[in-house]
Amino acid sequence: MDHLDLMKALHLQNTSKIVLLVMDGLGGLPLEPGGKTELETANTPNLDAQARVGVCGLSQPVAPGITPGSGPAHLALFGYDPIKYAIGRGVLEVLGIGFPLECDDVAVRGNFCTVDEAGLVTDRRAGRISSEKSAALCGLLQKIEVPGVLPFVLPVREHRFAIVFRGSGLSDRLSDTDPQFAGKAPLPLQALAPAAENTVALVNRWIDQAKEVLAGHAPANGFLLRGFSKDPSLPKMDEIFGLRAAAISVYPMYRGVAKLVGMDVLETGSTVEDEVARLEAAWPDYDFFYIHIKHTDSRGEDGDFDGKVKVIEQVDALLPRITALKPDVLIVTGDHCTPAALKGHSWHPVPTMIVSRYCGAANTQHFSERACAQGSLGRFPAVEIMPLAMANALRLEKFGA
Amino acid sequence: MDHLDLMKALHLQNTSKIVLLVMDGLGGLPLEPGGKTELETANTPNLDAQARVGVCGLSQPVAPGITPGSGPAHLALFGYDPIKYAIGRGVLEVLGIGFPLECDDVAVRGNFCTVDEAGLVTDRRAGRISSEKSAALCGLLQKIEVPGVLPFVLPVREHRFAIVFRGSGLSDRLSDTDPQFAGKAPLPLQALAPAAENTVALVNRWIDQAKEVLAGHAPANGFLLRGFSKDPSLPKMDEIFGLRAAAISVYPMYRGVAKLVGMDVLETGSTVEDEVARLEAAWPDYDFFYIHIKHTDSRGEDGDFDGKVKVIEQVDALLPRITALKPDVLIVTGDHCTPAALKGHSWHPVPTMIVSRYCGAANTQHFSERACAQGSLGRFPAVEIMPLAMANALRLEKFGA
Repeated sequence: MDHLDLMKALHLQNTSKIVLLVMDGLGGLPLEPGGKTELETANTPNLDAQARVGVCGLSQPVAPGITPGSGPAHLALFGYDPIKYAIGRGVLEVLGIGFPLECDDVAVRGNFCTVDEAGLVTDRRAGRISSEKSAALCGLLQKIEVPGVLPFVLPVREHRFAIVFRGSGLSDRLSDTDPQFAGKAPLPLQALAPAAENTVALVNRWIDQAKEVLAGHAPANGFLLRGFSKDPSLPKMDEIFGLRAAAISVYPMYRGVAKLVGMDVLETGSTVEDEVARLEAAWPDYDFFYIHIKHTDSRGEDGDFDGKVKVIEQVDALLPRITALKPDVLIVTGDHCTPAALKGHSWHPVPTMIVSRYCGAANTQHFSERACAQGSLGRFPAVEIMPLAMANALRLEKFGA
Repeated sequence: MDHLDLMKALHLQNTSKIVLLVMDGLGGLPLEPGGKTELETANTPNLDAQARVGVCGLSQPVAPGITPGSGPAHLALFGYDPIKYAIGRGVLEVLGIGFPLECDDVAVRGNFCTVDEAGLVTDRRAGRISSEKSAALCGLLQKIEVPGVLPFVLPVREHRFAIVFRGSGLSDRLSDTDPQFAGKAPLPLQALAPAAENTVALVNRWIDQAKEVLAGHAPANGFLLRGFSKDPSLPKMDEIFGLRAAAISVYPMYRGVAKLVGMDVLETGSTVEDEVARLEAAWPDYDFFYIHIKHTDSRGEDGDFDGKVKVIEQVDALLPRITALKPDVLIVTGDHCTPAALKGHSWHPVPTMIVSRYCGAANTQHFSERACAQGSLGRFPAVEIMPLAMANALRLEKFGA
């Protein structure tokens, strides 16, 4: 019995409302030893005020030392063990471009690449061709027809694209064709289970035609496929937690993951202010709101320490509009850390606070990495956030008599 | 999927170097309530300076409340779940005396004991006969010949000895002959698996002859065998972590465990200074260095509080030579605690620090039990040290897209 089973067995209904405010890539690092992090540098009177009445800690998205991608990191925030409930690369890629994936679709990630006359890969990224060129090639590939399957060829960015195969009884148990290293030929597609053999035959017919289509288009005269996968059929949040859940996020990837766990994905404008306004408008209609702030992560990825500080301050300034709604439980956290010092996601545990009337004796003065390290929640797995939210919302029955 | 699988899947190569400095039995206890521990008493300016730029916590070797032996405690430090990856008693015993165990050898721990005329054990330790007497008896037992198997009879200390059976297709699935209590007869050897029946027959032929050899040597006129075991074939550190790993340790047991996980075991002189010099000499040749300091544990076992303080100060004084090498990641910890107040290993979690450019916002002023209890690493399983070391060395890819 994992903790989702406990939630399923123990949840009950009431009129409480829970807000999960996710600042993507929230946690950071000092630029110099002994210095301040982005969150410590930011002037955050409203977050600090909440930290003084809430309980704080550091949440670990996947496991100690593991730097998570956005998919697994968000699954953990939503209460799903990100190792047990993996989302395949192909599915994540098409969610990221907002493709309306159906539950039997098979998605796969593609790279345009360069092959020489002997068929060996000479550049796995086709010289990083432009997104425009890539989109044009996808248009050509979209014309390929294979009886028994409907392929969607979707440009992503530069040399990256995705394909969704729609058809009856398709399997995603297919091997990659990407040999991982230049100097080798693309690998032949293999069935990883007997039930996948028909799918291999169909996809091979597509591959054969695609090779001919691309033959004259060097440097993008070949392609490599990775991560065949389907909707993982995750148990949904209403069934696990008994929550009517809504997602407010601008970017397709996060909207897609929220949809996989059964949230209603709300339309929203693109600024943080638009997102907060959407929350206000939807307030009567849901029990649980996930709000996603992207630009803390984006500025971290850019290595823009000051820019990340500004985004945090912008969220802080809007926080009073969220607390004015009087959520029974407010959680502020990130899906992972994105320190400007590393220009990318990192493994560090994430500053997290839970504020409710019943959250416990508060012992934190500020919302920061150092203050959360001393907080009463300690260092804990991110999958525990949802059970704590449910408990603080008084939405869980007693376990055992 | 456990965290070793994650490490195997995610590790990558770079030029970083990791030092794992293990002060055996590091953690301690105050002699009086409210007093200072050995580590708190020691004057450790260099360890404290590292703690101020690193992150600190308390690591739990096996599980809360469990006092580990050196074998499991070291496996945990090397990243291996010490409950899942057990090393048998026989193997630990022969590693401890530096026997060059081969992978098909079966090792077992022996006690000389006293038996009465009815064959019942009257003293399980044969009056703790001297090591010299024991060695002489092992010499007599070494003369026993059994066709099909080559036995090595190895004196250990006082009444303790070990036997290694070398042969083709031997099994270690054999029961103990030690009845655990005086007043009972030694137990007959039993096969714990069908494949062990041939081994039982061979070992019984050795046992029958050994009884005759010892008959006239009361109080050591019998013997008890425990913990038949083979090299556990642990996955090796290069395969798990992609590290070229070296061990610098004076004592055979630690050298043996390091060898079991695939480290190169370097020759070294016997002082801490010799070990540090060996580290300096080997610096260009490896990615990972395990350095083991024995005497913190030895003084703790002796109940010598002040002696343990002195060993800690000696290590502190040599620390600048280690930091001068500029390791990308420095870990300072112990395998377990050995409080002088207990004159033995204990269950307490171990003061641990991780220092790297990217270790996170430091919040600790000293390296001590109390300071580590407030550190941002919190209280965490020792098996997480290696994943954190790998992350800090930037040697892990992102998990999930």
